[in-house]
Order: sequence, then C-alpha cells, then structure tokens
Amino acid sequence: MSLNPSQIRALQQALGYEFQDSSLLSLALSHRSIGARNNERLEFLGDSLVNHVVAEALYKQYPTAPEGEMSRRRAHLVKGETLAAIAREKSIGDCLELGVGERKSGGHRRKSILADALEALAAAILLDSDFETAKSVVFSWFQSRLNDEASFAASKDAKTSLQEWLQGRGLALPEYHLVATRGEDHQKVFVVECRVPSKGLKETASASSRRRAEQTSAQRVLDRLQ
Amino acid sequence: MSLNPSQIRALQQALGYEFQDSSLLSLALSHRSIGARNNERLEFLGDSLVNHVVAEALYKQYPTAPEGEMSRRRAHLVKGETLAAIAREKSIGDCLELGVGERKSGGHRRKSILADALEALAAAILLDSDFETAKSVVFSWFQSRLNDEASFAASKDAKTSLQEWLQGRGLALPEYHLVATRGEDHQKVFVVECRVPSKGLKETASASSRRRAEQTSAQRVLDRLQ
Repeated sequence: MSLNPSQIRALQQALGYEFQDSSLLSLALSHRSIGARNNERLEFLGDSLVNHVVAEALYKQYPTAPEGEMSRRRAHLVKGETLAAIAREKSIGDCLELGVGERKSGGHRRKSILADALEALAAAILLDSDFETAKSVVFSWFQSRLNDEASFAASKDAKTSLQEWLQGRGLALPEYHLVATRGEDHQKVFVVECRVPSKGLKETASASSRRRAEQTSAQRVLDRLQ
Repeated sequence: MSLNPSQIRALQQALGYEFQDSSLLSLALSHRSIGARNNERLEFLGDSLVNHVVAEALYKQYPTAPEGEMSRRRAHLVKGETLAAIAREKSIGDCLELGVGERKSGGHRRKSILADALEALAAAILLDSDFETAKSVVFSWFQSRLNDEASFAASKDAKTSLQEWLQGRGLALPEYHLVATRGEDHQKVFVVECRVPSKGLKETASASSRRRAEQTSAQRVLDRLQ
C-alpha cells in the first residue's frame, strides 16, 4: 500500500513542509510491522530533535521560569498523548504503512504509533533540509500548545501525580522534609527530600522556593517509579 | 570569586570556543549554590542540545545500527560519568562558581556538578552563536568517544544490567518470551516480551533479530525500574 499523489500533497501541507526526497517521507511513515525498512531509526533521531526544539522554545518564551517549571512544561508538550494529538490533527494515521496485523487491529489510531511517526517525520525533515528549516517546521507544530496555559495548568503537577500513583496502589503518602536552607535572605535555596518508605526511595531537590523544591523532588521520585 | 583572564583563555581553548558575551560563560559556570543567578536553566537547554547532537552523530556514524543499539550508545555517551569525564579533561571544575558550603565539601570535583556545568556550557555556546557552531563544538567534545568501541563494549548491555539489578535485590531473574514473529524470511521481525514477575513488570520490543528484541525489552524494563 503506498500513498497516492493527493494524499502526499495533503500530508505535506498539513506538516508545513514539502520533501525533496520522497523516500524519506515514506520511510518516516513505515511502521516496524511492515519489516526491516521502518521508521525506528528516524524516530530515535526525531525524538531528540523535538525535545531540543521544544526546550529552546520554552527557554526563550519563559525567560524567568525555573528549570523545574520548564521541565514540566516540556514533559507536557512531548508526551505521547500530545504528540499523538498533533499527529491526528495532521491525519498522519491515514498515511501510515502498517503490517496486515497492525492494520487490522487499528494500529493507525494507536497513540504510540502516531507519536513515533510524528517524531520520525521531524527527523526526515531534518535530513531532507537543515536544522533551521526543521526547527521552524517542528516549532509550528507546537506553537499553539506553547501558548496554551489552560492545558498546561490542567496537567497534573508532580506532587499530585505522585500522590495518585501511591494511592492507586494502596501505599502510604510521600513525606516531604526540608533538609537544609542555604544562602542569604533574598537568594535562599531550599533543599527538600521526598521520601516514599514503602518503595525504599528518597530524592532531594533544591530550588529558590520550598514549593518548587518539593515539586522537583516529587518528580525525581516519580521518574524512578515510572 | 571570579575567573582571571588567563583562566578564561585556557577554558575557552579547552572548550574549542571563544565567547562573544562573557556573561553567558560566567552564568554557565555558576552552580545553584551561589544563588538565584545560576546555570540550571542553561543546563535544561544544554541537556537537550547535547542529546540531539549525539543522536545525530550516531545516526550518521552507524547507518545500519538499529534504534536499540543507538539508544544504548547514546546512553553511554551522555550519562553523568561520561559528561563529568569530559568536564574534567577541560578542567571545568577549577572554573566553577560555587557557594561556600559546596566549595568546602569538594563540589568542584562532584560528578553531577561537573556534568551539569558541561551541559550548561553547551547551551551558553548555542545562545552566544548559532546551532551549527554549537553543534560542531559539542561534537568535538564527544568525537574521540564516538569512535571508542572498546569503551562502549565494556559498558554493560541491558540484559546484563537487568540481571545484576535483580540479583542485587535477591529477586528472580527475568524471563524472555518470543511472543510473535512477523514478516517474510529476509525481513523477519521478532517480538519478545521481558517479564519480571517480582516487580509486576513486562515490556515487549520488536527487532530484526531475537537477541536485539530481548535487549530492547530488557532496556524498557530497566527504564521502568530505574
């Protein structure tokens, strides 16, 4: 099964990029279920490209946001759900090349397959052009979401997520301890430890507010649990 | 404490880059222990830049390596130990701005502080120049290691690491099950599931060889454990 010219036109328009080398486009759309010539290598490269483009956009858009906030914003933007939503807006699912089994079981609607294909397309654009071109295309995919404060606010913060994770497993709630404060009044640094005794985990984090240090320590515990 | 001109010269030479804006260099060297004006935001941006530059270098250097192998190679190159070793080669520790407490407790030799500073320097170079310049500088930091097959081979593969992790905790060894094979003879895809019943975890992976599918599934379980 391969794409007809009008599908290719529509997809390129939705992506905001016209390929010189159409074999790169086709490779990016080839799920591993169709065989060894698939988009897994492109996905590897595209994942890092998307991460970097989003990181740089956040760095510039939020010039005073602390690292922890930028990390949370990025995690929200590059998670599978968001990438799959972008892929759906561009009808990438209709263009995927899937093996028979995957096609029959609805692989073209599967979140992970859509997210991987979007990352692979980012890499294909990079290889077909240059970094600055690929960056501006990838940036355009995320632009509306970079400004979507409501959606970000609705995404759960790390302390809430950690609490829900533990409650869902009938485990005791985490404990937060202020283990140190450093520095002068106007530039104090708070060091907080988040403890989850039931999992034998503790992680510390420091930040210029106690609340942010708690959030970051909770995120570090979550990273180890997930 | 701030750097004298000969220290700045030596550092820039070691990095392979001369800053236009020396305040970016100084910011990248400022650990959070000295206050709110520190390198944490730069580290966030630099982390993604280093990841992407290394991913692209591996993509080009190993044109037939499967995604799982590139991921392992990248993990080996961008882990804290490697970044800290590069930072040490460039004597970055001598140039760090640390708070009194960190300085007294040997913070300028601490692995995580060195690794973070190297990432922050990568971002500072990006902001001081442009992507292509920053990419070639960062690439030069990793170049000898990109070719260092011996060091990579000595890094443990995912199956070995997983086994050791479980043994260290007195837990049963993982089980690998071939759950499907797909495709024609010369482009078969093997789907393997790695199971760790003691942790209630299972992860599948597919690859063009059974061994690689096992490695990737083990890596996915490891990612969830760690």
